[in-house]
Amino acid sequence: MDAQTLAQRCTEAMWQNDRTTQSMGMKIISVAPGEAVLTMTVQEHMLNGQGSAHGGMLFTMADSCFGFACNTYNQFAVAQQCSINYVAPGKLGDVLTATGREVHRAGRGGVYDIEIRNQDNTLIALFRGTCRTVKGQHLPEEIHD
Amino acid sequence: MDAQTLAQRCTEAMWQNDRTTQSMGMKIISVAPGEAVLTMTVQEHMLNGQGSAHGGMLFTMADSCFGFACNTYNQFAVAQQCSINYVAPGKLGDVLTATGREVHRAGRGGVYDIEIRNQDNTLIALFRGTCRTVKGQHLPEEIHD
Amino acid sequence: MDAQTLAQRCTEAMWQNDRTTQSMGMKIISVAPGEAVLTMTVQEHMLNGQGSAHGGMLFTMADSCFGFACNTYNQFAVAQQCSINYVAPGKLGDVLTATGREVHRAGRGGVYDIEIRNQDNTLIALFRGTCRTVKGQHLPEEIHD
Amino acid sequence: MDAQTLAQRCTEAMWQNDRTTQSMGMKIISVAPGEAVLTMTVQEHMLNGQGSAHGGMLFTMADSCFGFACNTYNQFAVAQQCSINYVAPGKLGDVLTATGREVHRAGRGGVYDIEIRNQDNTLIALFRGTCRTVKGQHLPEEIHD
Repeated sequence: MDAQTLAQRCTEAMWQNDRTTQSMGMKIISVAPGEAVLTMTVQEHMLNGQGSAHGGMLFTMADSCFGFACNTYNQFAVAQQCSINYVAPGKLGDVLTATGREVHRAGRGGVYDIEIRNQDNTLIALFRGTCRTVKGQHLPEEIHD
Repeated sequence: MDAQTLAQRCTEAMWQNDRTTQSMGMKIISVAPGEAVLTMTVQEHMLNGQGSAHGGMLFTMADSCFGFACNTYNQFAVAQQCSINYVAPGKLGDVLTATGREVHRAGRGGVYDIEIRNQDNTLIALFRGTCRTVKGQHLPEEIHD
Repeated sequence: MDAQTLAQRCTEAMWQNDRTTQSMGMKIISVAPGEAVLTMTVQEHMLNGQGSAHGGMLFTMADSCFGFACNTYNQFAVAQQCSINYVAPGKLGDVLTATGREVHRAGRGGVYDIEIRNQDNTLIALFRGTCRTVKGQHLPEEIHD
Repeated sequence: MDAQTLAQRCTEAMWQNDRTTQSMGMKIISVAPGEAVLTMTVQEHMLNGQGSAHGGMLFTMADSCFGFACNTYNQFAVAQQCSINYVAPGKLGDVLTATGREVHRAGRGGVYDIEIRNQDNTLIALFRGTCRTVKGQHLPEEIHD
């Protein structure tokens, strides 16, 4: 199986069990080794007390994008530390796109950058995540094409 | 109105409009100037593809706690930058408690630390948030006791 | 004065008073609005107890790069919060290059990303800084070309 | 050797080789398992272009404190990711104290919080560091009391 196919299969396996990402209506637009692109529409139940998208909902979107991007190698990877900068508010009905890319990967560690932009390409949030691989694989080892 | 009453009133005003915090089943246990304590039970739709509480759900809980804590002075405050360290997984059915406290506040800026622990007092996540005040108040200025 | 000239003049003004950056032997390779590139050689007094470049020395280099990049608009800007990921050790004699770019700037806030690489183009550290403008200017307002 | 003695011996071993910490005039006030307290006086060469202590110098002090605190178990530990919030400026001649404590340690990972305060007990900066243990020990295994 080539790296691109492996990335897609890992994403499909993760997606099936990822209740949070599903229940929030995220859609996976594309994945590649170390990369993922997701979309999500800001819904009523995602608003905070000030009428904007709750920071936690933006973070969750970025975190899902990070999770898919760093799990494209058929090796379980888990987040250790993540940071987010909020630069513009998300609004009800906004169609957000999270784009994640690998900045560094070596040994068991990795660093990923995720940007969230709205339908006007306005930058909404910047996210940086640090992960470590742990035991376990998304696909059985014996799977071959 | 004293500082404690003001904190409670601000929290009530925010809570009524905070769809995210409500829809995730969080409960506010207490607030005080610069402080907030929340609980949340980990539900099925909060699980990630690896069967643990999605990092975004933990973050959202911490972020809500942060939001309530930094909005206890009847002055709108918004998150600018937040960071989370995941130290142990949250599991289905866990009753989590987020405890937030003000570490620094001066001028328009503030820094808050939030800890999430489970029902066994095990530390699950550490969160640090930086906020800025913006225009607007939770309560009309003319309200007095 | 055009934006590029203004950036250079601000950098010159800051440099003259920046004892830390000078005393560590940093050199400014280039600046542009929102951007800066610096080099620094890892010296003996920059080593930690494990024989690698002290994390604080790498951070200081990145922080200086950040400071020059965000002060290119003739408006004092100060760091509020910074984060660094160490991905490979710096070694004695390494010639490091810090490259900083503006990721976001709006109102009084800004976010900047800085990468440090060594002479082999190996990524050593990733830095993200959040700043705010404050009162004061690097150049007297009456200066014109 | 008890844990406290081990902590002190590890610190002595690290200190001898730590050129950065020595050359900046830091002093170790105390160490204990997972803890360290350091002092440093802000000198001329530690000032930035705005006449305050360079953020990198504050970070370096916190990072050294972190390094000593997380290396008290006779197992090499290295920083992976660190974050700093600057809340008040350090001034020339200030005698700063960095106090570091372990917030979490499990397996190979740890999280440490460091506060820097000046001679008036004013909070200057907040630092949080994430570390991992790596191969190697500060003291030969055969050393016994």
